Amino acid sequence: MKNSDVIKLAHGSGGLLTNRLMRDVVLKYFKDKTVKRLEDSAQLNIESRDIAFTTDSYVIDPIFFPGGDIGKLAICGTVNDLAMQGAIPKHISFSLIIEEGFLLKDLERIIKSASQAAMRAKVRVVCGDTKVVEKSKADKIFITTSGIGIIKIKLGKEKIRIGDKILVSGTIGDHGIAVMNQRLNLGLRANLKSDVAPLNLITNRLLPFKSSIHCMRDPTRGGVASVLNETVDGTRYGIMLREGEIPIKREVIGATDILGIDPLYVANEGKFIAFVAHNVAEKVLKKIKSHPLGKDAAIIGEVVKEPRGVWLKTKIGGVHPLLLLEAEGLPRIC
Amino acid sequence: MKNSDVIKLAHGSGGLLTNRLMRDVVLKYFKDKTVKRLEDSAQLNIESRDIAFTTDSYVIDPIFFPGGDIGKLAICGTVNDLAMQGAIPKHISFSLIIEEGFLLKDLERIIKSASQAAMRAKVRVVCGDTKVVEKSKADKIFITTSGIGIIKIKLGKEKIRIGDKILVSGTIGDHGIAVMNQRLNLGLRANLKSDVAPLNLITNRLLPFKSSIHCMRDPTRGGVASVLNETVDGTRYGIMLREGEIPIKREVIGATDILGIDPLYVANEGKFIAFVAHNVAEKVLKKIKSHPLGKDAAIIGEVVKEPRGVWLKTKIGGVHPLLLLEAEGLPRIC
Repeated sequence: MKNSDVIKLAHGSGGLLTNRLMRDVVLKYFKDKTVKRLEDSAQLNIESRDIAFTTDSYVIDPIFFPGGDIGKLAICGTVNDLAMQGAIPKHISFSLIIEEGFLLKDLERIIKSASQAAMRAKVRVVCGDTKVVEKSKADKIFITTSGIGIIKIKLGKEKIRIGDKILVSGTIGDHGIAVMNQRLNLGLRANLKSDVAPLNLITNRLLPFKSSIHCMRDPTRGGVASVLNETVDGTRYGIMLREGEIPIKREVIGATDILGIDPLYVANEGKFIAFVAHNVAEKVLKKIKSHPLGKDAAIIGEVVKEPRGVWLKTKIGGVHPLLLLEAEGLPRIC
Repeated sequence: MKNSDVIKLAHGSGGLLTNRLMRDVVLKYFKDKTVKRLEDSAQLNIESRDIAFTTDSYVIDPIFFPGGDIGKLAICGTVNDLAMQGAIPKHISFSLIIEEGFLLKDLERIIKSASQAAMRAKVRVVCGDTKVVEKSKADKIFITTSGIGIIKIKLGKEKIRIGDKILVSGTIGDHGIAVMNQRLNLGLRANLKSDVAPLNLITNRLLPFKSSIHCMRDPTRGGVASVLNETVDGTRYGIMLREGEIPIKREVIGATDILGIDPLYVANEGKFIAFVAHNVAEKVLKKIKSHPLGKDAAIIGEVVKEPRGVWLKTKIGGVHPLLLLEAEGLPRIC
């Protein structure tokens, strides 16, 4: 390997090498007529007062996994956080912390993948930053993305009503299991692929139902069970899920069986949960299913007055609580 | 040390420990009537279409240094990037990547310092994220902040005119030298303190001069020389600085002498450079000096037709180019 093939500390110095890295790798992909250099600041013209603002850091290991990589994940994750706010995602910031010695070709692969995800999601990467730290002072590469979107539907857990139907946009657990399989060398064959995808491709279609959609959440870290626990926390209602209705791939069930973990606590990166007024739930479901990313969507439960908390009605009829865990006990998967 | 005194992987799991960390450490300081939890997304109401959006990652080593710490730096750095866009800084996102085993009391100290800086700068920390990585997979703590501000003055290097005066808001090199002294154990006594501070406290006062201020830059990574080189890059003018006019503390000159480095390439975190129409430069200078953070401000040069590039006229009358360096060759200081 040549010395010129790897990231050096000087790439993060703000000097000539930083400029070259921006020109030759980053701007090659994040090109936008309005962005001449990817500086740390951008000037935007935003046509609304109602703005969603979001941030997330991505530290996933491995950085490349079946179905995606840390670059695609960082774009989709922030796009999805905006979509969950009922917003149209618009502008993204992209900040890199890279370990000295990181391969330039891997960086290019990540940036290319991020830019393709941004194009697919129709968002602009408008500002960024690159820092390089010494060997073994970071785990290869960390990406922090922030996003700005225009709020089109006012959502929130306070809008949830007893009787609301709970929809999930597709099969659960795909991301976490695909990443664990690769990271832990489980050697599970089968079709284990991350679901990482920009959810605004579906949620933008749901605008006609704006008054009937009360809350949306993407079940990333901690999975469906954790995100539903956060949603009911401090409220006066409960959630009853029906195990038999939850879409999950056979391969994912097989993997979680082997690992001894509950797929309801496994991360997803291309799925969302929606709380929808019961009388239009079927229509919203049909709309979600009309997009390829939502083809496996299902109504998996409803909001109940009692019992409070999150509950699972099993296939054979038992009812069990889904608690918020101390820790998900999984490797870094988002 | 008790097990409960340190950050554990489970603090980043999205489970109970994550919630407790948020409640007991983060929200204790970042409290805001409008922010009940510091979630990864915020809904904002912004009273203008003209928005500045910025991001920066902070990987500074050491994380505590005379005059500040990584938390204060992360807030001020993003506030300053917005101020340099002619914007009033408003909303900040705050994303942490923490190494397993990091001391909770150090985290609390950093969050407290960040929240005090945010209060001083009158910005709201509205969304955040916390990730924990395994021991030795990060260098203690990294912070990425993004910011949203409302643009009040349209600035840009394309507005710079030949004849513009170049102002600096105070002494240069303080931050980089203070950090190097601590990191490299140089043992230089003297009053070496980082200048990290929110520059909007000064720039908000400059709004009355809006049509006469053409461009502002904060000379962080790479210092005054690097930021001026970036400014002239691709333009049809040059910059002539007068060494004798550049404010610099005696202690900083002493330290750079010992280290054999040029203070013009050393990072600042509480200073800005302004390009101002020559006929109002003295008035703007007076306004900057009216704030304690700007008391040492000075006019240090002007924009010239020839020679292009960045030049320094020395005290004894020589003229030397200030080039963009391959690397600043300094440890991580921002």
